[in-house]
Amino acid sequence: MYVYGRNVAKDCFEKKEKIQKIFLQENFQDKEIFSFIENAKIPLQFLSKREMDHLSNGVHQGIILSIPDYQYHDLKSILEDSSHDNDVIVLLDHLEDPHNFGAIIRTCEAAGIHSIVVPKDRQVLVNGTVMKTSVGTVENMNLVLVSNLSQCIDQLKDHGYWIVGTSLQDSVDYREVDYQGKIAIVIGNEGAGISHLVSKKCDFLVKIPMYGKTNSLNASVAAGIMIYEVIRNRK
Amino acid sequence: MYVYGRNVAKDCFEKKEKIQKIFLQENFQDKEIFSFIENAKIPLQFLSKREMDHLSNGVHQGIILSIPDYQYHDLKSILEDSSHDNDVIVLLDHLEDPHNFGAIIRTCEAAGIHSIVVPKDRQVLVNGTVMKTSVGTVENMNLVLVSNLSQCIDQLKDHGYWIVGTSLQDSVDYREVDYQGKIAIVIGNEGAGISHLVSKKCDFLVKIPMYGKTNSLNASVAAGIMIYEVIRNRK
Repeated sequence: MYVYGRNVAKDCFEKKEKIQKIFLQENFQDKEIFSFIENAKIPLQFLSKREMDHLSNGVHQGIILSIPDYQYHDLKSILEDSSHDNDVIVLLDHLEDPHNFGAIIRTCEAAGIHSIVVPKDRQVLVNGTVMKTSVGTVENMNLVLVSNLSQCIDQLKDHGYWIVGTSLQDSVDYREVDYQGKIAIVIGNEGAGISHLVSKKCDFLVKIPMYGKTNSLNASVAAGIMIYEVIRNRK
Repeated sequence: MYVYGRNVAKDCFEKKEKIQKIFLQENFQDKEIFSFIENAKIPLQFLSKREMDHLSNGVHQGIILSIPDYQYHDLKSILEDSSHDNDVIVLLDHLEDPHNFGAIIRTCEAAGIHSIVVPKDRQVLVNGTVMKTSVGTVENMNLVLVSNLSQCIDQLKDHGYWIVGTSLQDSVDYREVDYQGKIAIVIGNEGAGISHLVSKKCDFLVKIPMYGKTNSLNASVAAGIMIYEVIRNRK
């Protein structure tokens, strides 16, 4: 996996993370980073701006690191770990935008949530943009990869989780639900929202009230409002 | 100003907005958009992918529109309009990221907030990315451009506004403040937060509690949580 940007790179160096290779833009200048590189003895390659752009697909600020791919957790390990009793977890129902994914990881970490479930297909997975947007919080999070979100919800229910989803139809105000116990919050896709099958499996469908002409919020903003409401209600 | 993307373009066509020129990528195909273009009699130019990339600085999906620049409002018109009595307004303290700016405009519109104040310098202004991220809500918003945020706060105070800012230091839990009356919510810069001078002028400094290792949220997520807290408190 490629991660990029000066802050991300410095963070990797400081935390002594495994870096497989470093790519620098030909005219790259940053004394602090060069002193890290000199000490680290990691394979280094200089590339043109165009090659860097191609590799990073984003704003690399002249530095790209190749690091091992993120190692996802499995659901079983979370469900069987008693330290997760009475937890809140977050399920992403096929999010597309890496900025949203990264921001949601950051919000979860800030709110004290330890696990996020993501489906394997039609879902943005951990990449450089997600790492950057999450500002280093990915490593404090258990990201759980599942083949089927609907089956995962059945398993969560078997383990006593209440499933909460957001929906404009057949839903109550998000402040009217009691979020005690084990709670799984489902965050829907940016365009389509929560899928029909998943929405039918929710124990509670809630909505954030809308007072303007638009009928939805940015996915990471909606997730933030929901997550902090659940946290507030439980404290 | 250039705006881009198929949905943004369709939105402009449907709302019959003034379009000065249309740029299409050489191999562009979209029957619906072509039928709009045929009827509209707007100057049209075909460009290579590279030229399109250069013009849009983002994901253009083969179509870029040139439209008139956003016309900002002035503070006086907002302060003297009695329909804004008892309003909530939002002040951005030098935001840098257009995605955050767009998402905050969308959240404000959804929350029924009509005005956002932005400083003229060192602040991202309305551009194509902001337009796209705001999903068309910019046009329902009064964006007010000011030369000096600190002086603007003095004027707001003279008109009876209470100024609320977020800060980790010397602040109370965001749920402990009574947000009745005229309220101005200040959203800080992504990295530096609220500037020292602005923070000293705030009537209330509040913080969103953090339970993990990170000590901050994405700016648009924090704005969403604050805005919905203020709205909830007032209803």
